[in-house]
Amino acid sequence: MIDPIIFTGNPLDRASELRSDPDWVAGQLAHPEARIVPFWRTKPLIRLEGARAFPAWTSVPALGDHHDPARTLFLGLNGTQTPFFACDVSAVDEPKDDPLLTGLGKFIDLRSICPNLSVPDTGILAQGKAILQWHHSHRFCSYCGVETTMVDGGYRRHCGACSHDHFPRTDPVVIMLVTDGDQCLLGRSADWTPGNYSALAGFVEPGETFEAAVAREVREETAIEVGNVRYFTSQPWPWPMNLMTAFFADALTTGITLRDNELEDAMWASRDQVRLALAGDKAAGFNAAPPLAIAHHLLKAWVA
Amino acid sequence: MIDPIIFTGNPLDRASELRSDPDWVAGQLAHPEARIVPFWRTKPLIRLEGARAFPAWTSVPALGDHHDPARTLFLGLNGTQTPFFACDVSAVDEPKDDPLLTGLGKFIDLRSICPNLSVPDTGILAQGKAILQWHHSHRFCSYCGVETTMVDGGYRRHCGACSHDHFPRTDPVVIMLVTDGDQCLLGRSADWTPGNYSALAGFVEPGETFEAAVAREVREETAIEVGNVRYFTSQPWPWPMNLMTAFFADALTTGITLRDNELEDAMWASRDQVRLALAGDKAAGFNAAPPLAIAHHLLKAWVA
Repeated sequence: MIDPIIFTGNPLDRASELRSDPDWVAGQLAHPEARIVPFWRTKPLIRLEGARAFPAWTSVPALGDHHDPARTLFLGLNGTQTPFFACDVSAVDEPKDDPLLTGLGKFIDLRSICPNLSVPDTGILAQGKAILQWHHSHRFCSYCGVETTMVDGGYRRHCGACSHDHFPRTDPVVIMLVTDGDQCLLGRSADWTPGNYSALAGFVEPGETFEAAVAREVREETAIEVGNVRYFTSQPWPWPMNLMTAFFADALTTGITLRDNELEDAMWASRDQVRLALAGDKAAGFNAAPPLAIAHHLLKAWVA
Repeated sequence: MIDPIIFTGNPLDRASELRSDPDWVAGQLAHPEARIVPFWRTKPLIRLEGARAFPAWTSVPALGDHHDPARTLFLGLNGTQTPFFACDVSAVDEPKDDPLLTGLGKFIDLRSICPNLSVPDTGILAQGKAILQWHHSHRFCSYCGVETTMVDGGYRRHCGACSHDHFPRTDPVVIMLVTDGDQCLLGRSADWTPGNYSALAGFVEPGETFEAAVAREVREETAIEVGNVRYFTSQPWPWPMNLMTAFFADALTTGITLRDNELEDAMWASRDQVRLALAGDKAAGFNAAPPLAIAHHLLKAWVA
């Protein structure tokens, strides 16, 4: 079994068979129990209770002029059919100066606040962040250049000029722990905190299988050839809208040559070193990826 | 082991660490051995030899005015470092009237010609089709609406107005064989050939894991709950740029209720029925997905 992974386990029912009906969405927005959480420039509004953090759920009327139905995303229904929404309030210049918003909570970077949120809440906020960012970056029609409008509760944009529909994108990324007996391959980017090492990763390209993407990325970054690619699990990663797809792979060669400019260093780490690093022991000689990252769970599963 | 699956096994090295250098790409295009295949409105140019089909590889100079570097995609290098390209000639009104193009081959729908191509060639053409279609549908900047230009050998579009970069999209799709002991769940869409049944499928949404998407799609389409979701394999599906991600899942409930409008019918089929259907035996009572589809391989693995 894998431990609960941050951004997974979103408990809401997206009701995709209902949300394409604008009357149904409007009815859910008018529901007396409807809950909504604002996002400001990718940051969710968070309510803090000591060390614990919660999405700053509020009612639609309580948001006043900040609520714009054209920038509101239907997230889903909970077990008692209460509708949940997210809305984009990025038009506000400085939320710190807005008493309505400061009365509800604080806009905090999702990554930094994740450890204080429940795992199901991280899943809900990942959904909101990814889709609202997609709307922000897809305001204009890629076919004809005309401004489009949000429809289907936020799961489609429609172009009135050329009639094309646009759907949210999800970018699959492979992340893979390459192993050679009792050692595994780790790398680091130049812009990471010194000493941090993680599993290699990269975007899947069109016309490529996951298995081919794993082999290509490892080859490009380290010149190592791999085989026996095995799926591990997946994790949404809303920066901006990736789907981390984790694999194990066997090394067929072991000589490391840094071939592209993505990695500053790559190395083989022993199982004992990885155990120490996961325990936060400096004797490991490097820092392992934190529990937030799926790489952490790949390493944990490998040493187990 | 899984049989070779159509659209997988693309043998070309995409050389992604080199193709962002425009001088390098220009040098590859000028390579005396460079090979290029035209696409016309999603159809590749095909050379037929009896029942066998091949991409109609030609030289860049042989394409004359049909070759536009601004619509040319670098596919990759083969084992002897020969560069391969694809180019979009959709501006031609009617290729049948173009002696240069008819002299090289015929534009044929990729799906219909797949069984006559080698599996590695289907992989190369899937790559070309998916990325050229992405360029066709992403001519304008989704941030600001201004026309963008193809760069990095076709793996990026750049907006000169707002400086944003756009990368090809790959849409992950889940396709899952839900089983309950000796029976599996199959469905059909109203627009399919009568009698055809296949595994259920649907797009992954932002903020969702593969495992959650499998459960959601099965629930939405049939009201069946699933667990124990296991990865099988993946297949590029260039209509227009999907990545089929195949899973097995265990049914936790078995009563079928068609809940959305995607399926016309769903049913439980026995292992014996599936064996007959895979052998093309009408006694099965339905037609199984053809070898082209990853659903066929899911069914084959399940009966094996």
